[in-house]
Amino acid sequence: MIIVMAKNATEENIRRAEERVRNAGLKTHLSKGDEVTIIGVIGDKKKIANLEMNMMDGVEKTVRITEKYKLVSRDFKQTDTVVDVGGVKVGGGNLAVMAGPCAVESYEQLLEAAECVKAAGANFLRGGAFKPRTSPYDFQGLAEDGLKLLQRAAKETDLKVVTEIVDKDDIDLIGTYADVFQVGARNMQNFELLKALGKVNKPVLLKRGLSATVSEWLNAAEYIVAGGNENVILCERGIRTYETFTRNTLDISAVVAVKELSHLPIIVDPSHGTGRWQMVAPMARAAIAAGADGLIVEVHPHPEKALSDGDQSLKPKNFARLMEEIKELNAFMRKHYGEN
Amino acid sequence: MIIVMAKNATEENIRRAEERVRNAGLKTHLSKGDEVTIIGVIGDKKKIANLEMNMMDGVEKTVRITEKYKLVSRDFKQTDTVVDVGGVKVGGGNLAVMAGPCAVESYEQLLEAAECVKAAGANFLRGGAFKPRTSPYDFQGLAEDGLKLLQRAAKETDLKVVTEIVDKDDIDLIGTYADVFQVGARNMQNFELLKALGKVNKPVLLKRGLSATVSEWLNAAEYIVAGGNENVILCERGIRTYETFTRNTLDISAVVAVKELSHLPIIVDPSHGTGRWQMVAPMARAAIAAGADGLIVEVHPHPEKALSDGDQSLKPKNFARLMEEIKELNAFMRKHYGEN
Amino acid sequence: MIIVMAKNATEENIRRAEERVRNAGLKTHLSKGDEVTIIGVIGDKKKIANLEMNMMDGVEKTVRITEKYKLVSRDFKQTDTVVDVGGVKVGGGNLAVMAGPCAVESYEQLLEAAECVKAAGANFLRGGAFKPRTSPYDFQGLAEDGLKLLQRAAKETDLKVVTEIVDKDDIDLIGTYADVFQVGARNMQNFELLKALGKVNKPVLLKRGLSATVSEWLNAAEYIVAGGNENVILCERGIRTYETFTRNTLDISAVVAVKELSHLPIIVDPSHGTGRWQMVAPMARAAIAAGADGLIVEVHPHPEKALSDGDQSLKPKNFARLMEEIKELNAFMRKHYGEN
Amino acid sequence: MIIVMAKNATEENIRRAEERVRNAGLKTHLSKGDEVTIIGVIGDKKKIANLEMNMMDGVEKTVRITEKYKLVSRDFKQTDTVVDVGGVKVGGGNLAVMAGPCAVESYEQLLEAAECVKAAGANFLRGGAFKPRTSPYDFQGLAEDGLKLLQRAAKETDLKVVTEIVDKDDIDLIGTYADVFQVGARNMQNFELLKALGKVNKPVLLKRGLSATVSEWLNAAEYIVAGGNENVILCERGIRTYETFTRNTLDISAVVAVKELSHLPIIVDPSHGTGRWQMVAPMARAAIAAGADGLIVEVHPHPEKALSDGDQSLKPKNFARLMEEIKELNAFMRKHYGEN
Repeated sequence: MIIVMAKNATEENIRRAEERVRNAGLKTHLSKGDEVTIIGVIGDKKKIANLEMNMMDGVEKTVRITEKYKLVSRDFKQTDTVVDVGGVKVGGGNLAVMAGPCAVESYEQLLEAAECVKAAGANFLRGGAFKPRTSPYDFQGLAEDGLKLLQRAAKETDLKVVTEIVDKDDIDLIGTYADVFQVGARNMQNFELLKALGKVNKPVLLKRGLSATVSEWLNAAEYIVAGGNENVILCERGIRTYETFTRNTLDISAVVAVKELSHLPIIVDPSHGTGRWQMVAPMARAAIAAGADGLIVEVHPHPEKALSDGDQSLKPKNFARLMEEIKELNAFMRKHYGEN
Repeated sequence: MIIVMAKNATEENIRRAEERVRNAGLKTHLSKGDEVTIIGVIGDKKKIANLEMNMMDGVEKTVRITEKYKLVSRDFKQTDTVVDVGGVKVGGGNLAVMAGPCAVESYEQLLEAAECVKAAGANFLRGGAFKPRTSPYDFQGLAEDGLKLLQRAAKETDLKVVTEIVDKDDIDLIGTYADVFQVGARNMQNFELLKALGKVNKPVLLKRGLSATVSEWLNAAEYIVAGGNENVILCERGIRTYETFTRNTLDISAVVAVKELSHLPIIVDPSHGTGRWQMVAPMARAAIAAGADGLIVEVHPHPEKALSDGDQSLKPKNFARLMEEIKELNAFMRKHYGEN
Repeated sequence: MIIVMAKNATEENIRRAEERVRNAGLKTHLSKGDEVTIIGVIGDKKKIANLEMNMMDGVEKTVRITEKYKLVSRDFKQTDTVVDVGGVKVGGGNLAVMAGPCAVESYEQLLEAAECVKAAGANFLRGGAFKPRTSPYDFQGLAEDGLKLLQRAAKETDLKVVTEIVDKDDIDLIGTYADVFQVGARNMQNFELLKALGKVNKPVLLKRGLSATVSEWLNAAEYIVAGGNENVILCERGIRTYETFTRNTLDISAVVAVKELSHLPIIVDPSHGTGRWQMVAPMARAAIAAGADGLIVEVHPHPEKALSDGDQSLKPKNFARLMEEIKELNAFMRKHYGEN
Repeated sequence: MIIVMAKNATEENIRRAEERVRNAGLKTHLSKGDEVTIIGVIGDKKKIANLEMNMMDGVEKTVRITEKYKLVSRDFKQTDTVVDVGGVKVGGGNLAVMAGPCAVESYEQLLEAAECVKAAGANFLRGGAFKPRTSPYDFQGLAEDGLKLLQRAAKETDLKVVTEIVDKDDIDLIGTYADVFQVGARNMQNFELLKALGKVNKPVLLKRGLSATVSEWLNAAEYIVAGGNENVILCERGIRTYETFTRNTLDISAVVAVKELSHLPIIVDPSHGTGRWQMVAPMARAAIAAGADGLIVEVHPHPEKALSDGDQSLKPKNFARLMEEIKELNAFMRKHYGEN
């Protein structure tokens, strides 16, 4: 951390600021300019994280130069993490594709979806049994009944199950039926949920919050990893901007940023990220070309009948075409960038 | 809802779209223009809320014209709701001021803060015992010990206690010590927490999410009220924008919007909203002049020693000066706008 | 500026970075930490402004600690600038109110508007003769005919004229009829226009760009002042955020930020800032309570007949009521904060 | 346009609103629901664009259902526009790559850059002679001297020249030396400049504004095309969001949106879009995979010596590698999506 002193800071101000730093068990390094004096703070990251200086007289501002997260950083571990989901690998050059309907509605719907996404080459079945909805009057999901249907359809088609968790009390219940816990955008900073998932022995798919910076997102992942669960998969799903043509603005550059800053695998959700089925395929291609480890895509056998998010669901034949393209692009990426 | 058909929509497309609307138990009203045909959807709000049309062939887009929330809307109840917190009224022309340190640190700190905010005219003591922090390594609060200190200091000074809840399992615990449950920005769409608070018999202070629209915020409040708890106080605390000079952009216009759309009381948090103690007083004045029902302000007897958010905490003497101004402004508002 | 070296930076990297700084005529101050080495850059602001370091091997990032603008900063001049517009003062505790229709439509409309805003206490007549419109098919203004009408109506009612300039070639033309040149949000970084206005002997009202930071805005003002024209009035008119209920998000905190960082006067435009006439009065009150030096408000004698922006125009009787409140609030501000 | 009447609107309100619509030469279509009455407005687009209704008593809001732009829309012209720049084609499956330094500094620098980008396969030389800079103290470009160097280096290497125009008075000057006029993000809504470029016989590269919606951007292009110049190339260069890790947020989904809404070609600028040279290559790949018609990339032979934007410039060898990948990706796109 760097402490920038105000132009009119007195010698006494500077002395006291240095004293406060040293009292916190940290070292200072003073640098006096003609216009501005700065104090470099050196020492333990956690101590620096808790240091508050801005209220001191003569302090103009502080600038953090190191991130607070550690275990999830590329500095800490240089090689890509590969998350193993019962034999299916995510990260490290493996292509993970999670597909299925937004919400679980019936076994027929689910099985039909599962069969077509499996045939096209997906390796995970997605579907919501617990749905966090903006309005209390929207469809909230089938709960445990939905989980059972998910497990049954996935078993039938040899797919892994990924489904959303919205309440830490559901960990055991969902853990019985699912292979991956999905944490939605609205819960990215539900720290109690993250802490609870840190103690679990199953992978977690952590979606980026609606207006989370990459740094906040990695800090959220740090909560899970710091708890002992290293199997975190990140998922970019669009951020909130002023643009209204799309539901969200899918931030493909976050894939590149995460690859630089962290060793965790990252996939992309072009369905929520755009909110328009017409844009899913081109944005999925963009994600893979940028280096994403996979995709999570809404596919519905009859999207015009879907109970939620029909606007952004692909029909089976469009999904099949997308999978062809994606496999080819992944081969392109592997040729140029290897298996990591 | 209005369904806008694409220019090249066929008669068959239009017929099928109308059919789907009617199958959902709703009525249609067709309007054919030279360029565009639109279908008005008439009927029950909840049915409309669950209607998905965009995937149908020939449908270009849908436009919602009514909000999903109902119980919290000004349409539903014209008069201002006044929340009674053990005799202290919030809303309806009463000035509610909640003040105290960001985090509870010690009894001495808390009592000193409580005495000075009481003397200046605040009616609530605020302080965090459970702190949702971006990094797992930041100070997370004193938990139950902190709650006990809060209650003791508040009793000593005859103030009400408002404190944050981050986990629905803590409802009973926090309910024992606090008068108002605070839901933080990060949990505004933690729907499980909202549902649980809907069944509670104590007021809830619902902060606006970091990038929540006013509509989403009122829908979040609807979760609590729909559960049976009508005592919701809204709190604007700054939204996330591109500006970096302030920690957030305090959206004073949200106060005006809420007053138009809802009957619930709303207060403003200029401390988190700006992140800079120098800006707290002018933004507090702006909030009251715009029609806010009160404030929540960070006050710390020795902000330079605070364990968190010292940058945005007022010193007691600055808070006392602010209270003088605020009382005068509230009298101005009452003169012009009555007791409601 | 501070240069933060990467963790794996070599001694050679550090040596070369220091060398580049010194070759630019600046001094360095090295600070080696356990994890990170930083280089403080000391010397002439303009030289620092042009220093590019990030591409050098071993450099992780650079952090600017001083702003680039100088003449408009509070550091440079501590006392508030008061802009004199032909005897009407803006800034320094004087209340400037600019009011009138969005676009000049006819002399009757304009005179009716001018008479009512004058009667209510405004001191400037506003109205657009050149309108920058999103679509080429929108009404683009009456051009010189509009300017003549403006001048005539203003003379008749003893008001000053403020009107928008969108092209530097119009400086002489507009200068003949108007007292203040208004630079709109879309032209805030039209640097050629700013440079040309820097050579003019008339005040400039510089609106904040749609997504301009306060720092960029002050740099834009610096263009004008650096050219020799010190008579700049800033105007906050709402920024672009994700919220759609209001046309823009009126950033009242920018008033407070500008007052801290600069000596220039600042007024607020609650009409464009909200886009809804119902919100104009409360946001105008908020602006004054936050310390703004005045307002610019759209008033139209018959807003339902306006050719542009009727949605946000006040009717004369609402404007008159607003003026009563604003005068009282300004007296409150003067009582507490003096004449500066 | 649809007019949504307030719940408490009277019959008289509705009658008057309809009357106003009809007086503007438009037709109405009334639709009365149980809760809400809506009025559909049918007729000429330009008349609708100028219709202001929100101030009328009883009107709650208006919803536009058609865009204002026309000539640039896909509805107006279904086939892709191919812009011919002296024999080099942009759009329609042709890969356009514009590369070179941010600012023109010297002939040596420029020629070295031109030779390496030509060798790698670029077809345009980019370089700024007039630089719009945030601060008046930043390097503003070499002006005509820079243009001459650009033309000379481009001739030597058989490249086309693209360079920024910031003032309509420079049209003749820049037209003498350049093949494409670039309009920068800050000038996207400098309508006087757009109108002037509409009368010119040379292609225009129109960058998206910092916080422009896709709709506003297409309306800006409409200004140029409506003036008679159909040779407009769009360029996505990153939008402003809350994220600070990257300089801007490069919105790849805008490429997909533009392809759906318009027939104009679109290229992407990953250099300004990210502000970090490490991210240029992956984002360039993403752009092409999403369907972009080309790229504009900053390449500097010695970025550590660049006078501006060195942080985001590629070294020649990295650019050469990028070109290899991009050509392969473009072949992939052509295989799947044809020559259009």
